[in-house]
Order: sequence, then C-alpha cells, then structure tokens
Amino acid sequence: MAQKPSIPKGTRDFSPAEMMRRTYIFETVKSVFRTYGFAPLETPAMENLSTLLGKYGDEGDKLLFKILNSGDYAAGLADAEVRSASRICEKGLRYDLTVPFARYVVQHQGEITFPFKRYQIQPVWRADRPQKGRYREFYQCDVDVIGSRSLLNEVELIEIVERIFGKLGIGVTLKMNNRKILYGIAETIGHADKMMDITVAIDKLEKIGIDNVKAELAGRGLDDEAIAKLQPILELSGSNDEKLAKLREVIGGSATGLRGVEEMAEIFGYAKSSGISLPVELDLSLARGLNYYTGAIFEVKANDFAIGSICGGGRYDDLTGIFGMPDTSGVGISFGADRIYDVMVGLDLFPEEVNFSTKVLFVNLGAEECMASLGMMRALRDRGVATEIYPEAAKMKKQMEYANRRMIPYVVIVGSNELETRSATVKNMRTGEQRTVSFDALCDELA
Amino acid sequence: MAQKPSIPKGTRDFSPAEMMRRTYIFETVKSVFRTYGFAPLETPAMENLSTLLGKYGDEGDKLLFKILNSGDYAAGLADAEVRSASRICEKGLRYDLTVPFARYVVQHQGEITFPFKRYQIQPVWRADRPQKGRYREFYQCDVDVIGSRSLLNEVELIEIVERIFGKLGIGVTLKMNNRKILYGIAETIGHADKMMDITVAIDKLEKIGIDNVKAELAGRGLDDEAIAKLQPILELSGSNDEKLAKLREVIGGSATGLRGVEEMAEIFGYAKSSGISLPVELDLSLARGLNYYTGAIFEVKANDFAIGSICGGGRYDDLTGIFGMPDTSGVGISFGADRIYDVMVGLDLFPEEVNFSTKVLFVNLGAEECMASLGMMRALRDRGVATEIYPEAAKMKKQMEYANRRMIPYVVIVGSNELETRSATVKNMRTGEQRTVSFDALCDELA
Repeated sequence: MAQKPSIPKGTRDFSPAEMMRRTYIFETVKSVFRTYGFAPLETPAMENLSTLLGKYGDEGDKLLFKILNSGDYAAGLADAEVRSASRICEKGLRYDLTVPFARYVVQHQGEITFPFKRYQIQPVWRADRPQKGRYREFYQCDVDVIGSRSLLNEVELIEIVERIFGKLGIGVTLKMNNRKILYGIAETIGHADKMMDITVAIDKLEKIGIDNVKAELAGRGLDDEAIAKLQPILELSGSNDEKLAKLREVIGGSATGLRGVEEMAEIFGYAKSSGISLPVELDLSLARGLNYYTGAIFEVKANDFAIGSICGGGRYDDLTGIFGMPDTSGVGISFGADRIYDVMVGLDLFPEEVNFSTKVLFVNLGAEECMASLGMMRALRDRGVATEIYPEAAKMKKQMEYANRRMIPYVVIVGSNELETRSATVKNMRTGEQRTVSFDALCDELA
Repeated sequence: MAQKPSIPKGTRDFSPAEMMRRTYIFETVKSVFRTYGFAPLETPAMENLSTLLGKYGDEGDKLLFKILNSGDYAAGLADAEVRSASRICEKGLRYDLTVPFARYVVQHQGEITFPFKRYQIQPVWRADRPQKGRYREFYQCDVDVIGSRSLLNEVELIEIVERIFGKLGIGVTLKMNNRKILYGIAETIGHADKMMDITVAIDKLEKIGIDNVKAELAGRGLDDEAIAKLQPILELSGSNDEKLAKLREVIGGSATGLRGVEEMAEIFGYAKSSGISLPVELDLSLARGLNYYTGAIFEVKANDFAIGSICGGGRYDDLTGIFGMPDTSGVGISFGADRIYDVMVGLDLFPEEVNFSTKVLFVNLGAEECMASLGMMRALRDRGVATEIYPEAAKMKKQMEYANRRMIPYVVIVGSNELETRSATVKNMRTGEQRTVSFDALCDELA
C-alpha cells in the first residue's frame, strides 16, 4: 500500500513558512481593497465548459483543465464520441477570474447594486507546460468596478496601486496608456483595421527596439508612408502633459484618439488632486495583450527588481457582452502574487513577524510545571499572543532546538525553582538574554 | 455568442454579502489557530489519483472528481481503454484535507519540524448527489498537530473549540469519547473483532434509541449475553468522573480499554487546570465514522440550533502509514464552515460591521466638489476607514439609494455651500441624523 507520494507537475505545496509570507501579501492587498469599499466575491473552481470555451482563444481552450463527467461517463456513447472531450466532460477548472466575474455579473444582474465593486482572490488552473515561474495552479488577485464609466474609478485603482506597494515596501512605477489612443494612432496613419497589429508591434518597442518594430510593422502590411507617420509617436518623450499635447497635435483628427487623450488628461488631473505621489508614466509602447480592453490600461513594474509586470489591468466596455449583457463598462487590475512574492524575497522586504507563527514557547519540564503554566498560557492567548507549550517533557536541548527551528523569539521556563518562587525565566532567543519575571508580570512582559 | 450563464450543479457563487460573513468566520477561526501557534498550510487542488484512490472506501473513489489528461488524452489507447477513467485521467480534485495533509507530511518529512502544528482552510470537491446543505464544492477548515502523543494536544484543541465558539457567540457542547474505550467495550463483551459494528450501532443510540440499537447489534451477530453485558455501558450516566469510574469497573479487564479511560481522565484533568469552562461531556454513544481514529474523539454541537455537529475530529496513530511513514501519531479537528454559517444566520449572531464593506460614501455633486473631496477621502483611508465616492454625479436620490442598498452607514455631502464654508454634511444613514462638520474635523469624526 505504501507509495512514494508526490504532487502533479506544475502544482505546489505551500509550506507554513511560504504561507505566512503569502498571507502577508494577500492580507495587505485585501486590507487596501477594503479601504476603498471593494467587497469580496468567490466563484466555484468549476465552471461549465460552455462558460469557458471560446473566451481565451484557441490556445486558451487547449489549456483548460476538463473534468470527467461523474459516474459512467462513456455510457451510451459510441467509441468515437468517447474520444471527444466535449462528450465526456461538461465542466472545467476556471482559467482566470475575469470570465467567471463576467458570468457572475450577468447571472446575478438583478441582485447586484451597480456600480459593483468587487475583489476576488482565488486560484486558477492552466495546463501550460510547467517551467520556472510558471505554474499550473496559481492565485489571481483581481479588483474591478463594473457599471460605471467614470474615470474616478481609474484614479482609485492608481491609488490602490500606490497604497499596496507602499505598504509592502516595493518601489514601483505605474505605466499607463489608453486603447483609444492606440486606435487613434492606427486611424491617423490610415490603418484603423490594423490597430491590433500595430499595438502588438509597439508593445515590443522596449524589448526589440525601434528598428525591429518598424520591420515587424512592414511585415504586417504597413507601407513606408504609414510607418513614417508613426515615427513621432514612437519617439514621444517628455512629461505626461507634454506627451498628451503632442498627441493632440498628431492624432487630433481621430475622434476616438482625441477622446483617449482627454481621458488620460482627466485621469492625471484627478490623480494630482488626490495627492498621489506614485510615479505614473504615459507610455505608448504599453499595449497589453488582452483584446477586451477599450480605454485606459495599466502596468506596474518594480523599480529595483527585474521580473516583468507585477500588476496590470485596464478599462473594458463590453466584457459582459459575451454572456448577453451589453454596454456594461468596467475597469480592473490584477496583482501577480507569485511575482510580488519573488520581489519581496529578492529585496528582503518581509517583516520579521512573518517568519514565525509562535511568539512564546513554554518549555515542558513535567506534569506539575505544565499544570502551573497552563493558566499563564491562557492569559497570554487572551491577549492575542501566539503561545504554545512543547507537548512532551523532552530534553531541554530538543525543546530549544524546536524553538530555534520554528524561529520562536521567546522561551519561558517554569521549573521547580520557578514554581517555588512563583516566577518564570524568559529567554530572548535572538539575543540569548535571560530574565526572571514573576508569574503576575509575565503577561505584560510578553504581550 | 450570447448564452444564459449558469454554474455546475452543487456549486455556489458567494456574493459579497455572503463572503463578508464567511470571511468573518474564517478570520475568527484563523486568529484562534494562530494564538495556539498553528501555522497555515496549502496543498494543490489537484492530487495524483494514486494519492487519492483507495483512501475513502469504494464509495469515496466514485465521488472523486477526475481531471482529463491534457492534450490528446485518447492517443494510442484502444477503444476499451478510453472507456476506463484510470487510463485517461491521472489527477483528481482533493476530496478532503486529511489525505493531502498526510501526503504532505510524508513527502516533506525531512524539512518539517515535529511536532508539526498546521491549519488548512481550502475547498474540497465531492461528486455527491447535490441536495439541501450538501454541496459538490465546500470549504474544510482543519487544524492538526502531528508527531506528538501528548494529551496536551487534545487539551489545546478543547481550548481552541471553546475560544472559537466563544468569539463567534455560539453556545456549544463538546462531546468526547475514546476509540480505545470503544475497543475495550467490544473486547469486554467478547467481540473485539466487532468493534466497528458495535461502534456504528452505538453511534445511532441518540437517533434510533436503545432498543433499536440492540436489534441492530443482534443483526450484526452479537448474542444475547454480549448485548446484556453491554447494557450498563449503554445506560452510563452521571459526571465524566462518575462515568470513568464505572468504566474502570466494567472494562478494566481490557488493557486497551483501561488505557482509553486513563487518557480521558488525564485530558479532563488538564482541562480543569487550564481553566476551561466549556461543557465537555464524555459520551460513549459518540463514535464518528472515520476509521483512522485510534484515541480521543471530539464532536461539537450548537446548544440552541438543531443542525448536527459543527466541528469534530480525533486522535489518529497511523494516518501517514498509507504513504509509508508509520508510527506518527497526530490529533486534529475540523470546523464545518457551512453549518457554522447557518447557525450564525439562524441565531442572528453576525456583528453589524460584517454587513457593509464601505463605511463612508461621499456623494458626487460634480467635478469641483469631487476634487475637494479627494483629499478628505485619502485622509480617511489613511486611518483605515473604508471610504468611496459615488463615481458619477448622478441624482442625489440615486446616490442615496446606492448607500442604502450597500448598507453604508455614513454619507458625506460636499456641495457648493460646503465648499465655501470648508465643511461637510455628515448623514448617519441608520438614524437619519445630519450634522455639519468642518473639513478638518471630518476625519476624527468618522474614524
């Protein structure tokens, strides 16, 4: 019956040490979401395949984990049918939180108070080839407001970014752009139909450089004249206001483009009134892959750690349209917990309290000493101090090793001497310092 | 493309209102776990089927959700093989948290510091027939210590039960028993081999009454003499100490039974020293279904709400043996979040703050007023007050309705009058009372 246990490739166990750090990140993120009035939502791990299929492109469809129908899944099916996943699976694991959110909003539209502000922190599953930093199960951490076109929502998200990374101690830069500006550019150079091609190419500006982008654009069917018109856009520089002024000039002939420019001007204006000090940079090379974005788009990078974007999102005008509820605009961002974790480990940003789950360990010297300790332990726990007693009266060395390995900062010793004098010895495990404290004072001392 | 969206049967969306209440329960539970030095653990949703199969009996095997292999699952398989789930699925969704915990402990035994105290709060999935109160996806909330035989661990779990239900405001009774006592009983009446039959029958004592239990025992092959010997056990009454005294008499001839009696005496003794005031009752009719229990067993019921057990668990001596790591004793309990939720709704125990996600709504009367509000909102959020502004300058009535529907307790109005006098009108939405407060005092007023 014994077997060497393992877990499926691409999945992870999170040990207590990892979980305490992850919990710190999630709690920080949630506390900020709540400060802005966002409320939690959870959707089931399994969705009907009909909800998921066709929402992530052909490639995404292939990466869905499908769940075999319960019972005799093959009953009544011909051999060829059993070879078709759609005949033997009705459900799949969620692939992201966005489609389930859209599904939820449409399904519950009668009960929801709009604008609907929700956050959602749950795992998602993708049958990607596992590789370093890419997992088949990972948490997404999304915050969205849906049912409002107001740009105050964008400003709120900027503030949330500022506040979360401020609390975590990660220096970041927020890059923004606007899909309407990107459309305006495409329209201005006479290739409105090629907006996505142009966008995808511009997105690579930082990675492959201006010449390669131009080559790629030519490859995607843009003539020299169009590429020449694009030149000032690719070379845009200066402050956000300067960039917006230049854009008004260049793409002002496109009504959509101009609207994008004015949206960004309004967002930057509100951000100033709001007292935001986070660096926010208008970056036209920012495109983001997801094609449901229609307005402002966001991307956050850590200043002092190379890892790609750690947060991103944007405005979408028709996410719920896929489920038959049109004209419901929303905006949201998603925090990348795994990458934020890596940044925090890399920059050593986790506070010390995150490293231990127990603050005080009572050494166990036998039944009588133990009985005497129980009341003190209760008093400490009443004050919220994480306290435990070593459950066996093992050798002192073993108990001290346990405290060290679990990084417990204080050890309390109640031996026969201490019992007589109604006092305890408190050892600070960091400094090695030992002090004698009366039973009565112990609680104040350690709380 | 439009489709009427729905979710798989037996699964649930948790709305913000439900999530806030659920979060309150989970946070309370976790805060107590942490007070006792338990640290969080998470394992993947998917386990290898080899880890799961055979651990829950034949019935359990059928209830596992299996995940179709990625890619061309049928490639190279004969038709008959494609009809066999074990050929097209390697992974399944976890069915409980216990087996993944045992798997984790065995897999990571080299890194773990024992005794290992962990809690784990994650969903599990079972392909049960959905019915009222039974779901295909539900959270389990487990706390275990493994690698210690000390009965102090049992006492700690009793304290945890007391503290959690105390914090939640649920009056409960803890029933305890000991599998060794049950074995001792079976041995004493000459049917040591029938311990599980006797246990299952005794478990029904409360439900079907003493006569039906006797009939069932006869049906399971016990002769009249054995049943007669069982009589004093079935009629045991009095205090825990009285019951233990009587048991020492009746089953004292069984070494195992006597050990069970002494274990319970020790646990009750420690519980007294620890100052536990929770009613703990030795109840021999308590058996609990899971056959891996080997010592103390626990079950908690709400005093004022009929719903079955809301928490239960026990001591197991060989859980990790299924994965090739013998002789590792542990003890743990599991909290039933869904039932606790129902009890709290039924008895109206959720505190008022759990009903709203935003404490202060700023009414939006236009761009200028809005700009003036942003700084105040930031100051409130700096103090942790959940604050939002209605994103559009909609009609006052609509904004007030929004506040009411979201149960927001305070609304702040900054209009042109207020702008001039640098003051805001604060409306208490519960009482209807309105006051004028200066910009400078607003924050103190509402924090």
